[in-house]
Amino acid sequence: MALKAIFLNCSLKSSEDESNTEGFMKDVQVHYNQLGVESEIIRLADYYIALGVEEDMEDGDEWPEILELVKDADILIVGTPLWLGEKSSIATQTIERLYGSSSVTNDKGQAMFYNKVGAAVITGNEDGAKHAAASLLYGLSHIGFVIPPNVDAYWVGEAGPGPSYLETGGNDFSKAAIERLAYNTFHLASMLKNTPIPAEGNTL
Amino acid sequence: MALKAIFLNCSLKSSEDESNTEGFMKDVQVHYNQLGVESEIIRLADYYIALGVEEDMEDGDEWPEILELVKDADILIVGTPLWLGEKSSIATQTIERLYGSSSVTNDKGQAMFYNKVGAAVITGNEDGAKHAAASLLYGLSHIGFVIPPNVDAYWVGEAGPGPSYLETGGNDFSKAAIERLAYNTFHLASMLKNTPIPAEGNTL
Amino acid sequence: MALKAIFLNCSLKSSEDESNTEGFMKDVQVHYNQLGVESEIIRLADYYIALGVEEDMEDGDEWPEILELVKDADILIVGTPLWLGEKSSIATQTIERLYGSSSVTNDKGQAMFYNKVGAAVITGNEDGAKHAAASLLYGLSHIGFVIPPNVDAYWVGEAGPGPSYLETGGNDFSKAAIERLAYNTFHLASMLKNTPIPAEGNTL
Amino acid sequence: MALKAIFLNCSLKSSEDESNTEGFMKDVQVHYNQLGVESEIIRLADYYIALGVEEDMEDGDEWPEILELVKDADILIVGTPLWLGEKSSIATQTIERLYGSSSVTNDKGQAMFYNKVGAAVITGNEDGAKHAAASLLYGLSHIGFVIPPNVDAYWVGEAGPGPSYLETGGNDFSKAAIERLAYNTFHLASMLKNTPIPAEGNTL
Repeated sequence: MALKAIFLNCSLKSSEDESNTEGFMKDVQVHYNQLGVESEIIRLADYYIALGVEEDMEDGDEWPEILELVKDADILIVGTPLWLGEKSSIATQTIERLYGSSSVTNDKGQAMFYNKVGAAVITGNEDGAKHAAASLLYGLSHIGFVIPPNVDAYWVGEAGPGPSYLETGGNDFSKAAIERLAYNTFHLASMLKNTPIPAEGNTL
Repeated sequence: MALKAIFLNCSLKSSEDESNTEGFMKDVQVHYNQLGVESEIIRLADYYIALGVEEDMEDGDEWPEILELVKDADILIVGTPLWLGEKSSIATQTIERLYGSSSVTNDKGQAMFYNKVGAAVITGNEDGAKHAAASLLYGLSHIGFVIPPNVDAYWVGEAGPGPSYLETGGNDFSKAAIERLAYNTFHLASMLKNTPIPAEGNTL
Repeated sequence: MALKAIFLNCSLKSSEDESNTEGFMKDVQVHYNQLGVESEIIRLADYYIALGVEEDMEDGDEWPEILELVKDADILIVGTPLWLGEKSSIATQTIERLYGSSSVTNDKGQAMFYNKVGAAVITGNEDGAKHAAASLLYGLSHIGFVIPPNVDAYWVGEAGPGPSYLETGGNDFSKAAIERLAYNTFHLASMLKNTPIPAEGNTL
Repeated sequence: MALKAIFLNCSLKSSEDESNTEGFMKDVQVHYNQLGVESEIIRLADYYIALGVEEDMEDGDEWPEILELVKDADILIVGTPLWLGEKSSIATQTIERLYGSSSVTNDKGQAMFYNKVGAAVITGNEDGAKHAAASLLYGLSHIGFVIPPNVDAYWVGEAGPGPSYLETGGNDFSKAAIERLAYNTFHLASMLKNTPIPAEGNTL
């Protein structure tokens, strides 16, 4: 059975506008297509995601729909642009909402995100990628995801205003990072599919 | 003329619900009342604040109304709860939206936030206050605010789940931090009111 | 063959003085002993670790000795106290020195830290644990370690001065975190021993 | 009487080797020379700075010598290179050692760093400057320094390996940031020299 990956694009722009982060995600998808990993990109700004940390905040909250996609996936890639050196507010909210399910368990009693793999992709005009990656990967790891090596793929330009990812097409460094992220999320998700983490010492 | 302070409460809860961060802000207000500083607390979750980094995102965006209050104030205090050790998504958005005005200038050609004082208050069940403070104060400083000494007042409990600020009433450490924050924002705002930063070497 | 774990204690104090971080590590070792994981705690402040990012800075540099232990281990746990909400300077240096080997490869051409598992433990009087954990786990992940779920075990007290870990003995939250860290580093290290990450798409 | 500025260069290299951070500091000094600010650059890697958080760790500790220069200065600029997106280990240690004096008071009973101005400069091949600036400026602010607007001057290159600051000479963005840092530290230090922060509500 094919592995499934879900990309949550935390751009501040809805899908009427071009997103550099989405361009980066598509470059990861090229590898997933070759590896037979099914994947889908969700533009979170297209949805009404309510403030709060309940699984369903109701009153039109569309997060539960997103959460179903995450539950169904083997790999979650959170992608964000950078503003003042920080991940976007929607990226922060994504972690808040995922955290809202952190006490839900799978059928073995582990947190429901166990045996899934997490990763982060970041684009920005300049500076901030590693800090955003550290925060996102930590958040995912803290709620149950496995973090493979080298799953912090990013492109940022030189200090100051300048061209964006789609204008530059990235560079050799970002291309290598994209490849490693795609392969290592695939490798670890395959391993966890074949050999889930034993439910010993880690149930809630 | 009295100094004005605006508190932006970045709780995820609207004002129907009690906010620990708001309780903390009220403890700062006690000092402001004694010092003759006029202050107001805004619960951002009560407003529709659009995603984006324009001054006015239109289509019902209520940020411009908040921005007017910030423009009119001498002191801005951003307050946030903690989720997974990070400031809230609304706090992240607050910095994004303020950043959207970072190229607007005052009548001397400096960034419009020059000669204002910035501060941060944080409440959480546990861990994360200093990291949130560092991020908020850096963001404010980067767009023009002056950061006085000791304006990172917080209360967090011991590691793990536990009582909140309003349940504990804080402790001697948080009370001293609240006092220092109130006095130092007052002192520096008074100085900047009397002696604004010369517009030499810092215009946009 | 038994799994091996190495603890690098980044306390600012040499082993003449009691270390809360070491006390925490010993509480992890209790589980390792039951699981049959061989482990050793190294107090880095006892060694002369030179500044720089070469594998061997020479002139008496004792890092190469530490590096051998890391190479030989299946699990690396970096432990740090907190100062002003940040990991210690030796913890920062530990990541710098590990990074100095990040272009060295194993016999399959992957970074030499591939197929090893990384984790972090943190003790402090108050606040800062998650930020330190995020930084340490990100650094380890970026150079090749796999980060299992829930391997950020910590104890911190309430905001302000107060008792240390050894004085309190931690709490239920820290005890559960210790257990999960021990079991999940064991589970993932076992999996990687049996099934190393394929060297496809991730060689240097 | 002329204002005094001290630069603490937290490069991992001693002064036998060229430091990009030092090159950046010299570009700040050009402005200080025009403004009549006396300044000195200290390469910390040339000194033996002991681990710990006492004012004097003894046994040859050379920090007390550095501390005297800080006490005597009106402006402190901490400068750091970047490793894995973080400030250097010496920069971390600099904050630890300054923190070791945080309970020492001036003759009015305020923390001894009150009425001094703090700033940060950062150079790196790529990514990490804002995160390092946020951490350094927060640390300084928490122990008593005033943080003027726009005192986080940095240069970093595009994502991945690439030329260093001295090889590129920076860019228009970094030049403007250097100018603003120089003028704003000068402006605020002048204000604080003329009008120190009243010792009301902020003594220890």
